[in-house]
Parts: sequence; structure tokens; C-alpha cells
Amino acid sequence: MTTTAQRTYNPGKGVGEPVGIAILGHGTVGREVVRLMHEYSEDFTQRIGGPLELKGVAVSDKEKHRGTLAEDLLTDDAMSLIERDDVDLVVEVIGGIDYPRKLVLAALKAGKSVITANKALVAAHAAELSEAADAANVDLYFEAAVAAAIPVVGPLRRSLAGDQIESVSGIVNGTTNFILDAMDSTGANYDDMLAEATALGYAEADPTADVEGYDAASKAAILASLAFHTRVTADDVYCEGITNITSQDIEAAKKAGYTIKLLAICEKLTDAEGKKSISARVHPTLIPREHPLASVSKSFNAIFVEAEAAGRLMFYGNGAGGNPTASAVLGDIVGAARNKVHGGRAPGDSTYANLPIADFGEVPTRYHIDMEVIDRTGVLAEIASRFSAEGISLRTVRQEEAGENARLIVVTHTALESDLARTVSQLQESEIVKSVNSVIRLEGE
Amino acid sequence: MTTTAQRTYNPGKGVGEPVGIAILGHGTVGREVVRLMHEYSEDFTQRIGGPLELKGVAVSDKEKHRGTLAEDLLTDDAMSLIERDDVDLVVEVIGGIDYPRKLVLAALKAGKSVITANKALVAAHAAELSEAADAANVDLYFEAAVAAAIPVVGPLRRSLAGDQIESVSGIVNGTTNFILDAMDSTGANYDDMLAEATALGYAEADPTADVEGYDAASKAAILASLAFHTRVTADDVYCEGITNITSQDIEAAKKAGYTIKLLAICEKLTDAEGKKSISARVHPTLIPREHPLASVSKSFNAIFVEAEAAGRLMFYGNGAGGNPTASAVLGDIVGAARNKVHGGRAPGDSTYANLPIADFGEVPTRYHIDMEVIDRTGVLAEIASRFSAEGISLRTVRQEEAGENARLIVVTHTALESDLARTVSQLQESEIVKSVNSVIRLEGE
Repeated sequence: MTTTAQRTYNPGKGVGEPVGIAILGHGTVGREVVRLMHEYSEDFTQRIGGPLELKGVAVSDKEKHRGTLAEDLLTDDAMSLIERDDVDLVVEVIGGIDYPRKLVLAALKAGKSVITANKALVAAHAAELSEAADAANVDLYFEAAVAAAIPVVGPLRRSLAGDQIESVSGIVNGTTNFILDAMDSTGANYDDMLAEATALGYAEADPTADVEGYDAASKAAILASLAFHTRVTADDVYCEGITNITSQDIEAAKKAGYTIKLLAICEKLTDAEGKKSISARVHPTLIPREHPLASVSKSFNAIFVEAEAAGRLMFYGNGAGGNPTASAVLGDIVGAARNKVHGGRAPGDSTYANLPIADFGEVPTRYHIDMEVIDRTGVLAEIASRFSAEGISLRTVRQEEAGENARLIVVTHTALESDLARTVSQLQESEIVKSVNSVIRLEGE
Repeated sequence: MTTTAQRTYNPGKGVGEPVGIAILGHGTVGREVVRLMHEYSEDFTQRIGGPLELKGVAVSDKEKHRGTLAEDLLTDDAMSLIERDDVDLVVEVIGGIDYPRKLVLAALKAGKSVITANKALVAAHAAELSEAADAANVDLYFEAAVAAAIPVVGPLRRSLAGDQIESVSGIVNGTTNFILDAMDSTGANYDDMLAEATALGYAEADPTADVEGYDAASKAAILASLAFHTRVTADDVYCEGITNITSQDIEAAKKAGYTIKLLAICEKLTDAEGKKSISARVHPTLIPREHPLASVSKSFNAIFVEAEAAGRLMFYGNGAGGNPTASAVLGDIVGAARNKVHGGRAPGDSTYANLPIADFGEVPTRYHIDMEVIDRTGVLAEIASRFSAEGISLRTVRQEEAGENARLIVVTHTALESDLARTVSQLQESEIVKSVNSVIRLEGE
């Protein structure tokens, strides 16, 4: 279809040397990457300026993958594959932390650029990996680690590199969004919707990393690092999952005009003295139903960026799955391979701002508190005055039921997390509150 | 605030040589670029690896700008500024085509990388500019040319470079979206809402480029070129503006569950024999009110990308204005300056696929036709049979009013544009149709 004259990337440069690729892992993502590399090899050659050549795929058990790939491409010796002279780029799609860390470090030290889709690895060991990449003057790409095919790592590193980012927040875990969305639309409870997510393949057999928010916390760490030019690891991220969200919470939220989403929130904070710090947190969050993130349904992801000059931006799409993740990995392969053929290096790690991570207690938040109170005149006023005594002003206090089951729903204005938490725990112990049904933070108003 | 130890971009590299910048134009965007470069100079130094130094700003009339900038930075001799040895990057924010083309070509030929926000220039002369950039081995960046601060040029060139893009479509002109959104929400007519857009600064004194769709057509050409690795110029884009949209059209659309948006639509088409081609077009479009683009209000922009592996992605934000445009320009400045300091070059023009541009008549579209018909039994059946005779099947035929003012609203299924257009024009001349009120294409179902 293409003529020789068109087979040039940059006029006069011709088609360059082949770029050798090693892929570590042959699961859903790895297989899609191999398939698409093969199916569109001509396009890759043109876009890169030289052909991509798959040199091998490392798996832990060759028997398991026999027949899925040419015999001579499969190996169970990842380290030897990485070290081959004809391998220029190493793609890590194994998952886990310790083993891929060893392999990625070995690849970088051997002078190979690395593309990884591994959020947990990047969120835990970015400093070590970046240093190794810098020392060897090679690339470390990880677009697929956050929100799969939705371009967000690249835009934060490049397109928005001239702006001052104030916050990055959004829905970065498809599994929990699927569950919460299903609870919201059907009224079903958490356990049933988790079971449905598992049956449909949206949740893994062990859903802990998703439902406890750890996966989102890794992504929050990566986003905060990029946005604020500061090293943020998963350990710096306050994290609360969705396992305690009940159908009653969802119902109450709905009634009050909210929906509950698991948000990753990364903010630059400025205190009264002008001192800047960073908050990165993941927790169930009430947002108004007319907020753009409220309409993000099923397993979709969406990321909001607020920047000084750009204003508010949103990126939306498939945040998980073999194909979308492969799309992001392949985009990174093209980038790293172009640099191999044409010279140059992608912008590396940027942590110069080195802002402190705010203690979670010092972060301004808002609470939505659902509690059962004793049946006594003046209980509403008494509760309001307890908040007021702690310097917390209330936006609304709503009595839902009366009598024996008197239920109060309190929505606060913004206050320090520690003040809010202390007040709620004091109320919990007071004689006027029978029980606190739920405490959910609120954003986006 | 930062210590010496933190003042490195890549460990061991230290802070590099200054990067000299010349800015051509000192309007809203140019002034914001200068202000932000100055205000955040420390950040730019860190992010680039060397300081940005503003060497001069070229204006046509120095008197007009006196006092807005240090006297020795203002010049009315753009060409001499470009050619200064200490200028490494040239930023073009003048607008227009012929004059900036001359300056940008001169800069590229002199070995300076160029950042431009000029969609009309890029859409008209991308081939010539890219050749000059390739010949001098310098960068040509234009993120700001499409949808201002919404990262879309970068993601198409990089993050999605490993995928097969099927379509890129969206709202890429804020002025027309403001007018259509205002007509939709108030019921007012086009002229009044154009006047309001002008009063509020959303429309220019001469709104032709916006309301006739030319501005959107330039952006469509740029998006189609990037997405399909094919040279597409503004002349290749079918273009229809919004000046004929009436409040009656908006009302009828609303009643039927649609909203009218001016969309830029870039699609890869495959005909029955598997031959691929490209359609790039701009026209008022009916979309279902629940479509994500339907809720893009005011002067916001949103771009939908459909790719084979990534699936559907959406990018949303401020598509115009001084600040958002400056954000995109500054992101490009950081990119080009990094390459200057650290070596390497951004991915250049990629037109290897060289797909043909489909004749607009051969493009599959759908029509929503609003017409007045004569008052006679069987007129509905007669009209339906006329479409059927042309091989066009109808989705709905709705009689809105009866008697003297009998009005029919016909929505077709997908058919070739030329067949639809011919059928409508035959109907228009037939004795059964008194007049055709409007023909608006329909997408997104």
C-alpha cells in the first residue's frame, strides 16, 4: 500500500535499525501487546522510523503458554532475555512488586529503556527506578500505570508542564466504580454487587487491592508526584476503601442529591502562612449528582485536573482491561523506540519542588454524618452546638425520622480533618447519640 | 526556597545553559505567556534543566505596547529578533496566515524551534512548515492550535501513537458552542445570542471565522492529520456554519430529544471493497441529549477519540481564552526547551498513511429533515416511498402539525451524503413539499 517514497519517518532519514523488544509477562495485556505489534507492524515501522522486533516473551511457566506464541520466543529466563544485546526495550506487564522491581532495575542498569504498566511498582519505587534510568540515560515510561489508555501521565509530564497544577482528582479504579454505580442504580448491597463485579470479570478473585483503595492509592501517588514535582509514594496516601458503604448510605446520598464515588484526590494546600504542602488521599466521597464525575458509570475512569492557566480539564475513558492497557503500553513503546532510533530522551522524573506531605489531620475536608440520636427535644440544637464549640460550622442538619428512631444527617462546612474526626468521636461517646451510621467525606460543591 | 542540591533536572547534569525565547505578538495570549514565564521562572528552570530567558517581543506598533514590557524587550523588527544568535525558540502568537508563515519559516530555517498557537497557519501550511523543521532538525509544536489547554495534539502524537484511531470528533469552537447552548437554554434566536456572545467577549467583532465553521475546520484538519497519519488541510474539510440555525430548529430538536452542536468530525472510512479513506467535516449536528457531548455547555470544548484498543476517550476543558492558550504554549515551550538543553526532538509530522480524502458525497451521514407539506391524504406514504426509491431507509417520520400547515419531520438511517442531498433537493422541487425548513445531520446514536 505504501510506496518507498512514503516509507520515511523524517525525510532523508530513511528507515532506521530495528528496535528489539522483550516482554516480561504474557497475561491479558502482554498478549494484546504482542498481537497488536504483529497486526500493525507496518504502522509501527512508519511511526517509529524503524521496525519493532519482538525478541522474546518471558513467562514463569512455559508449558502454560505453549502454542500461544512461536516456540523460540517463549522463555522462562527473564534475566537472560533482558540482557540480550539485541534487546533495546523491556516491557514489564507481570504485576506484583518485588520480582518486577528486580527485573526492571536489571533492565535499566543494562541500558534498556523500560515500559511498565505496574502502578504498585512505580508508586512504591519511583525514586530507585528513576535514578537507575537517569544513570543509564534511558527512558522509563508508565502511561498504562494510571487509568490505562486515558492519556494522563503524558499530559501531566508534557502538555501541562508549563502550568501550575492545583489539584488532580478522579475515579481511577474501575472495579470500585462498577460496584458503587451498580449499588446506586439498583439499590443492591455491597456484597451482591461485588459478587456481580467478580462474575462479570470486573473484580479479581481477591478484590482486596481494589475495594480497599490500595490500587487507587498507588495511582494517586503517581499523579501527585507528576502534578506537584514532588516524590509521593503509596505510603504517603491516606486510604479508605468502599467495603463499609451500605445500600442505606447510597440511598441517603441519592435523596440528598449526591452520589458516592471512590475518589483519588491530590491537592496542593496553602496554609495561613502561605506554606505549601500536598494532600493525596483516597476515600469514598459524596459528590453532587450534577458534578461531571457523578455521571462516570460502570468501570469507566475520569480524571479532573485544575491548573492555574488551563482551568479545569477532564480526561475520560476506559481505565482498565487488556486492550486499553495495551494501547497505553504501545504508545509508550513507540515513544521509547523513537528515542532509540532518533536520539533524545523523554522528560524524566521531576521532584524538585519537594513539597511536604500534609498530615491527614491538617487537611481541610467536609463531613456528611448520618447518626441515630435519642428522642429528646433540643437534641438537634445540642449537636449543632457541639460542632460549633469545635469551630466547625454546619451547612445543613436534617432530621430524617423522629421518635424512637430519630435520625439526624449533618453536613459540615470545610474544617480540618482532625477537628471533624475528634468531634464525631466525641459525639459517638455522648449520651445523645445512639449510633453513628456513617461518616462520608464530601467534595465538589 | 530550593537548595542547590535540588536544582538539578537530571541528577548529575546540573542546570544547563539558558534557553533564549522570542515571542512574536503581544496580544492576550502573548502577554499571559510573558507574565507566567516571569512569575514561575524558578519552576521553568527546574522543569527544563536551564533557565528560560525572554530575548524580545515583536509587535507591529511599539507605541501601542509601551509600558507593558521593559523598553529594551519590545521591537517592531520581528525578523531581526528571530535571527538573533541568542534566540533558541520562537513563539508565534500573532494570528493570520501570510505574515506569520513568513516569520515561522524564517525561524525554522534559522534553526530555531517554533511554538505556534495558530490553527489557520498549521491547517493551511503544515507540509511546508514540517519540511522546514525537518530540514533544520528543530521542533515545531502547536498544542495550543487545537482546543487551547486541552491536551490533544500531544496525546494523539504520543500516548495514542501505538493505537489505530477510528475517529476524532467534538466541539472545538467555543464561540459557536456558547451561541448554540444559549439558544438551547433560552429559546432565543441566533442573532440575539451572537450579540450576547460578542458583548461577553466570546465572539470577535467579525465573527465570520467562528460562525461559518472555518476555525473548527482548521482544527479538524489538524486533528485528522494527526489521527490518520495523512496530510489533511483546511481545504479538505467540508464546512457548514451555524448561521442558518433557527430557534425553531433548536425547539424541534429539543422536542425530539436532541441538541444541536457544531461538531468537527474526523473519521476513517472503509468502503465495501475494504478501501480506506478519510472524512473530515464540520457542520451543525443533532446529537441525543444524553450523549456526553450534549452536556458540554457555554464556551467549553470537548473532543472524543475512538481507537481500536483504547476504546472511547474524551478530553474536556477550556478551548479558548488567553490563559488556557498560554498554558498550552508554555507546555510546548518547556518541551522544546528541554530538547534544546538535553538533546532530542519531538515526534515530527507523520503522513505515511497518505489515505485519500473521501468525496463528501461518498460519506455516510444521516439527515433530520423538517419540511412543510401539502394537505393531502397519503402525503406521508408518498414521501417515504421517495426515500425508499433512492435506497434510503427512514427511521422515523413524524407529522407535527396538520391541515394547512402540515409539517413532517423525517429522520433517515445512514446513507450516502450525495443520495440524501439529491433526494432532499428532488423533494424540494416536488409538488407535495411546500418548503424545507431545515436539514441537519445527525450523529451519535
